Amino acid sequence: MPYYIGDVIKQENSLIARTPEKFRETGVDVRIDTRVEEVDEKAGRVRLSDGTNLPYDLLVLGTGTTPLLPGIPGEDREGVFTLKKFTDALGIKAWLKEVSCRKAIIIGAGFIGMEMSEALRNLGIETSVYHRGTLPVNRWDTEFSKAVLDELERHEVRFVTEVEARAVEKGRERRLRLVTNQGEEEADMVLMAVGIRPDAELARQMDIPLGKTGAIRVNFSQQTSREEVYAVGDCCESFHRVSGRWVNVPLGDIANKQGRIAGVNIGGGNMIFPGIVGAQCFKVFDLEVAATGLDERATLQSGFHPASTLVWGNAIAGSMPGNKKLGLKLIADRATGKLLGAQAVGETGAVSRVNTLSAALWAGLSIDDAGWLDLAYAPPVGGSWDLIHIAAQKLRRQL
Amino acid sequence: MPYYIGDVIKQENSLIARTPEKFRETGVDVRIDTRVEEVDEKAGRVRLSDGTNLPYDLLVLGTGTTPLLPGIPGEDREGVFTLKKFTDALGIKAWLKEVSCRKAIIIGAGFIGMEMSEALRNLGIETSVYHRGTLPVNRWDTEFSKAVLDELERHEVRFVTEVEARAVEKGRERRLRLVTNQGEEEADMVLMAVGIRPDAELARQMDIPLGKTGAIRVNFSQQTSREEVYAVGDCCESFHRVSGRWVNVPLGDIANKQGRIAGVNIGGGNMIFPGIVGAQCFKVFDLEVAATGLDERATLQSGFHPASTLVWGNAIAGSMPGNKKLGLKLIADRATGKLLGAQAVGETGAVSRVNTLSAALWAGLSIDDAGWLDLAYAPPVGGSWDLIHIAAQKLRRQL
Repeated sequence: MPYYIGDVIKQENSLIARTPEKFRETGVDVRIDTRVEEVDEKAGRVRLSDGTNLPYDLLVLGTGTTPLLPGIPGEDREGVFTLKKFTDALGIKAWLKEVSCRKAIIIGAGFIGMEMSEALRNLGIETSVYHRGTLPVNRWDTEFSKAVLDELERHEVRFVTEVEARAVEKGRERRLRLVTNQGEEEADMVLMAVGIRPDAELARQMDIPLGKTGAIRVNFSQQTSREEVYAVGDCCESFHRVSGRWVNVPLGDIANKQGRIAGVNIGGGNMIFPGIVGAQCFKVFDLEVAATGLDERATLQSGFHPASTLVWGNAIAGSMPGNKKLGLKLIADRATGKLLGAQAVGETGAVSRVNTLSAALWAGLSIDDAGWLDLAYAPPVGGSWDLIHIAAQKLRRQL
Repeated sequence: MPYYIGDVIKQENSLIARTPEKFRETGVDVRIDTRVEEVDEKAGRVRLSDGTNLPYDLLVLGTGTTPLLPGIPGEDREGVFTLKKFTDALGIKAWLKEVSCRKAIIIGAGFIGMEMSEALRNLGIETSVYHRGTLPVNRWDTEFSKAVLDELERHEVRFVTEVEARAVEKGRERRLRLVTNQGEEEADMVLMAVGIRPDAELARQMDIPLGKTGAIRVNFSQQTSREEVYAVGDCCESFHRVSGRWVNVPLGDIANKQGRIAGVNIGGGNMIFPGIVGAQCFKVFDLEVAATGLDERATLQSGFHPASTLVWGNAIAGSMPGNKKLGLKLIADRATGKLLGAQAVGETGAVSRVNTLSAALWAGLSIDDAGWLDLAYAPPVGGSWDLIHIAAQKLRRQL
């Protein structure tokens, strides 16, 4: 019987709404709030935290990531959260209600920091983002990071730069007080969103090789170095089609795909995971922020000679109403003209361009191709020269 | 000196805002409201309608299309329009004002018919669309044409099916009366939107070969059979990268691209037009309607063995608010698995999917590739399995 072990909880309108009992009827033994402490490969069984053992023929590691913590005193206080699991979100929601939260501090300015600043502001909570750097979301070009910062400020998120958290203490007027190298601030809640690392602890115990990324090495069938042990999702590596390297990109869509690949192969099929191109996005207030392929640093690390251009234009025809301002950055290889990456920011059309260029990257197209792609044109949805064409032809002339 | 001859008119905020005098300062002789009646190739000159002659070394034919008319009595009456040129639009606007138009009839249910029905309804004008078939926009799957029909009806456009126009007469209560095989209807305006054909008259006079499409044959440099005569835009053919055939797709973005290619080559550069994949779209009221590649009929004509699937799902994550219903149809070749075409309809996300798949078609990707494309995922902009993945994997299983 297949086992599923994890901290799955009941959720309306999804597969998970089936209780463990329901799963058992379909032949799957689901154990929630259960941890595997150890894998005994010789005996072919896993030992659970309650001391019981379960036998296996095939094992799938889907252990995900662990949120990083800054390692400061008081980071374990009540009211200090990380956000990784669904249960974390429920915990935060309950806390906000319990303390009638009026003020929150987020430490970190990545995806989670941005998305949570919007969620908290939408609840009317005064929100500060503390960041060790000067601009949010450093995967994007400085110009686009500035656009994100403008969007935060437009929605009255306080953005504190070049700051180092020193401690979380008990507050006087609010529940907590964050102490930093730039002074102190009190808040009802502190969210630590400073990053994640792949949780490869079980794999390490089993002497399954990890990659340079610290994530579990797998082949294109999602098998680890052991034929009978698969790994999928945030805890393992993926093949990056643009760089030709194995990377760790902990995103939900990639995890979903790898899960299906492992499932098909375990079920007797034969399917390979064809890799990723690094497509990612988030929304912060009214802004779509998207990227795909490699950023300039990654192109250099992979031996390319990058050239880039960044243009601002319109997501739809200039004659149409609405805020249509769109920024697009393209990166290509000087030597071969190969398209290497793209970034886009705008209230509309950013994700659409990045997805079109993700298909181009998937196929290994050149900047010449990108300059002449045949895209669906109508004034309410684009220009007769799309910003993709404009940017690509501009970059082509630079090479 | 380069000449530009045509019916260009002054338009705010565009290049055309420069008067012919301004153009002349930059070394281009622009003649508006001017027609070339004949080309004397031996003498290397064109004869204009006012009898004057202009010499040339190189000639570019950008003669566009001519709107078709049903060929019925009264189709030349005042108040009966076609819509092809900018001046047609100005004429319609002036007429609507002059007659305080309250009722309009559109004959034809293609792009122009759909877009104009929206424009007229937005002015509060009672609008009927007369169509010889049963459903609008026959390039799309019946299911999507029905969605377009629903959208028309939701906005109170009357859609009259299987009808044949017999005559346009003088009306009693309104300016005009349309007589059909199903009775009569009066209106203040009648728009004939029954199709267009490439205007290749000058080329025909010059014995320049036309393609089977009736449009001018060109090479990848946009040259006709004569080295010194170029053709660009709606009057000429384009290479379709999916079918491998030369087609006539009269769309503004293609015309723009071909114009640039011809210009670069005439200017001493060396650039080829890499072709099209058939991407197109329009918006009708709140609905995006988009397609790319080949429809099933075209796949058969090109020797493929098509299989297709049509799925309905969400443009963004199911948990997000808003009307996110999206329909996507994919067509692939049974023998090779090659992706051949796509169609999409929805209030949001239809054009985005079609553009992503246009890049895939451009690169000759397979339905397998489409099923695993790495796309930017975040709940406000997409699902972790995008509808592209869902449709492609479903179609893959059918092959």
